[in-house]
Amino acid sequence: MSQFSYQLLSQDLETGARRGVFSTPHGTVQTPAFMPVGTQGTVKGVTIDQVAATGAEMILGNTYHLALRPGHETVRRLGGLHGMTLWEGPILTDSGGFQIFSLESIREITEQQATFRSHIDGSIVQLTPEHSIEIQESLGSDVAMVLDHVVALPAPRSTVVDAMERSIRWAGRCLNAATRDDQARFAIVQGGLEAELRIQCAKELATMDFEGFAVGGLSVGEAPSEMYRITAATCPHLPADKPRYLMGVGRPIDLLESIARGIDLFDCVMPTRNGRNAMAFTDRGNVKIRNATYREDTRPLEEHCPCLACRHSLGYLRHLFVAKEMLGPILLTIHNLTYYQRVMSEARAAIENNTFAQYVREKKAGWGMVDELP
Amino acid sequence: MSQFSYQLLSQDLETGARRGVFSTPHGTVQTPAFMPVGTQGTVKGVTIDQVAATGAEMILGNTYHLALRPGHETVRRLGGLHGMTLWEGPILTDSGGFQIFSLESIREITEQQATFRSHIDGSIVQLTPEHSIEIQESLGSDVAMVLDHVVALPAPRSTVVDAMERSIRWAGRCLNAATRDDQARFAIVQGGLEAELRIQCAKELATMDFEGFAVGGLSVGEAPSEMYRITAATCPHLPADKPRYLMGVGRPIDLLESIARGIDLFDCVMPTRNGRNAMAFTDRGNVKIRNATYREDTRPLEEHCPCLACRHSLGYLRHLFVAKEMLGPILLTIHNLTYYQRVMSEARAAIENNTFAQYVREKKAGWGMVDELP
Ligand SMILES: [Zn+2]
Ligand SMILES: [Zn+2]
Repeated sequence: MSQFSYQLLSQDLETGARRGVFSTPHGTVQTPAFMPVGTQGTVKGVTIDQVAATGAEMILGNTYHLALRPGHETVRRLGGLHGMTLWEGPILTDSGGFQIFSLESIREITEQQATFRSHIDGSIVQLTPEHSIEIQESLGSDVAMVLDHVVALPAPRSTVVDAMERSIRWAGRCLNAATRDDQARFAIVQGGLEAELRIQCAKELATMDFEGFAVGGLSVGEAPSEMYRITAATCPHLPADKPRYLMGVGRPIDLLESIARGIDLFDCVMPTRNGRNAMAFTDRGNVKIRNATYREDTRPLEEHCPCLACRHSLGYLRHLFVAKEMLGPILLTIHNLTYYQRVMSEARAAIENNTFAQYVREKKAGWGMVDELP
Repeated sequence: MSQFSYQLLSQDLETGARRGVFSTPHGTVQTPAFMPVGTQGTVKGVTIDQVAATGAEMILGNTYHLALRPGHETVRRLGGLHGMTLWEGPILTDSGGFQIFSLESIREITEQQATFRSHIDGSIVQLTPEHSIEIQESLGSDVAMVLDHVVALPAPRSTVVDAMERSIRWAGRCLNAATRDDQARFAIVQGGLEAELRIQCAKELATMDFEGFAVGGLSVGEAPSEMYRITAATCPHLPADKPRYLMGVGRPIDLLESIARGIDLFDCVMPTRNGRNAMAFTDRGNVKIRNATYREDTRPLEEHCPCLACRHSLGYLRHLFVAKEMLGPILLTIHNLTYYQRVMSEARAAIENNTFAQYVREKKAGWGMVDELP
């Protein structure tokens, strides 16, 4: 019997939002869920205890970065990602596909493999679907992503079709290469911004033996409405009894709009990266902590947030950033991760109560947003 | 009745080491004690909870830095250093004297005041003894240091004498300017490397109404043996019923050698600065975490250290520094602060048991050191 399962607990009556539980060898994840990104084996700026305290149940690691440094064999000898990071819950690793195709590196893609130049030492590295799985098995993640062929958009239709079809073939090679029973494989739907191609890709992947399905190649510069449209077109063609993961997304509003269209899992660097850059997510919208108006503000960033940053005053947070102290990025990273988890927790409750659409409207009002879609 | 007291609990029979308790409005400090440095209102790289978890009971803030940024009035409006940082224990603030005289800034010292150039915006700032106390009263520290005149060594005897005598007069002005009952004032003994001058200065300051006494102007490049010699000469002339503080010192060995000569309190940036620079303090000496030999080392930095860094492997700590991740400096700062507190805790127990000299010999053996003194 598989060590992985997705249990659908309830479905929102007005939207496509799903409330579920994803079970793994390292415990369960209440979905919809947001995974903090630990690119190089650490969620930037925070200790593993602090990550857990935000309420996160699952984190993400990057195959591309870890394979180059410290190397997947080293990670394996240090106890895998779990042993190294001391993260006790589930971990998902991406396949390296997105990094290879998005980082500035000379590269060639053939049917056999992707060839790229390391951003660390400039050396030439080749990655096959089989090797990506081998690396992820060494990393010991609970969920391995298939190696996919991501194309920059806009691109000619033939290029998009070609990459989509290769991604399907590579997904099959990943499945064939896998050897670990305690690691799930997730497929990645490609197909650019054409709903027809996405649907075709989803249908073909759905026939294969994956424990979950991702929507990839989005959040690469297209309008949010385009991303929502593709997500809405794709999800109905993915198995209802498997988790659905929208890769690399996004702003809080993007999470809610995508949950409404059937997505269960997210990852994004925004809460951590923006936190390091003095930008805080709050229920009243984004707050730029360096703003001089906060200089002597004794109020917390958010009155009801239980995080450590919100025990301090806005004036103190501002001072830390102005004085270039590490504690500024640390505290704002903690707050932003806590905020993302709070939104997910509220979303899960709203789905259970069949009030998700209302919940999204209230959030948008707080963020000062009008509907992205007509 | 004073809100401050120093209670001498026991004295080592072989050395001058003292075991005591320093009481303040924000609680007690078991001495000998090490104060982590929070220059700009934060101990660099760690949250206030993490500072407390290292075992520290008292921390230090820098008047010079805080007066320039965010400004002492702003600190006061944000709740003082306690309200800003959320540190619940005692806080000591230096007077700005050492920074003014050690940082690269054009300056002039007259009997009335010190004039210096801000390292932040280049503006001309004047600091009198009275203003230093006013600033520290705004910061709301438990212990304010007097403004002293520090000279770079070596210096002509007349320069050292002149600065020492001015420091004594400025100490008196600080006492006269003070208005807060909930803030103690500590005097600072100057006098360069001449024991005779140090003794003269200590005797004069001892007649004045201070709650504690510091030895200043050391750890500025002189040999450790010189520092120990001056400390040994000075302490016997300071009141036995008041705490003695050796400013800006030092390596673990310096703390132990100075405790043996009668010092109770220390502060130093070494554990935090070295932690950020990948250097760890351990019972077997200094460890350079970037060393390639640790690449796949699954052992912790120190087997019996309870800190978060020592729950991870050496290989992981090395990876974090090689990959330039913030978590490396964070974890090593935590370890080094924990290490300093552990040494102080062991020292206190050794004094109680009259085994301090033996304890110092064992520590030195572990650190691979021979006696600094003949
Ligand atoms: Zn918060
Ligand atoms: Zn440790």
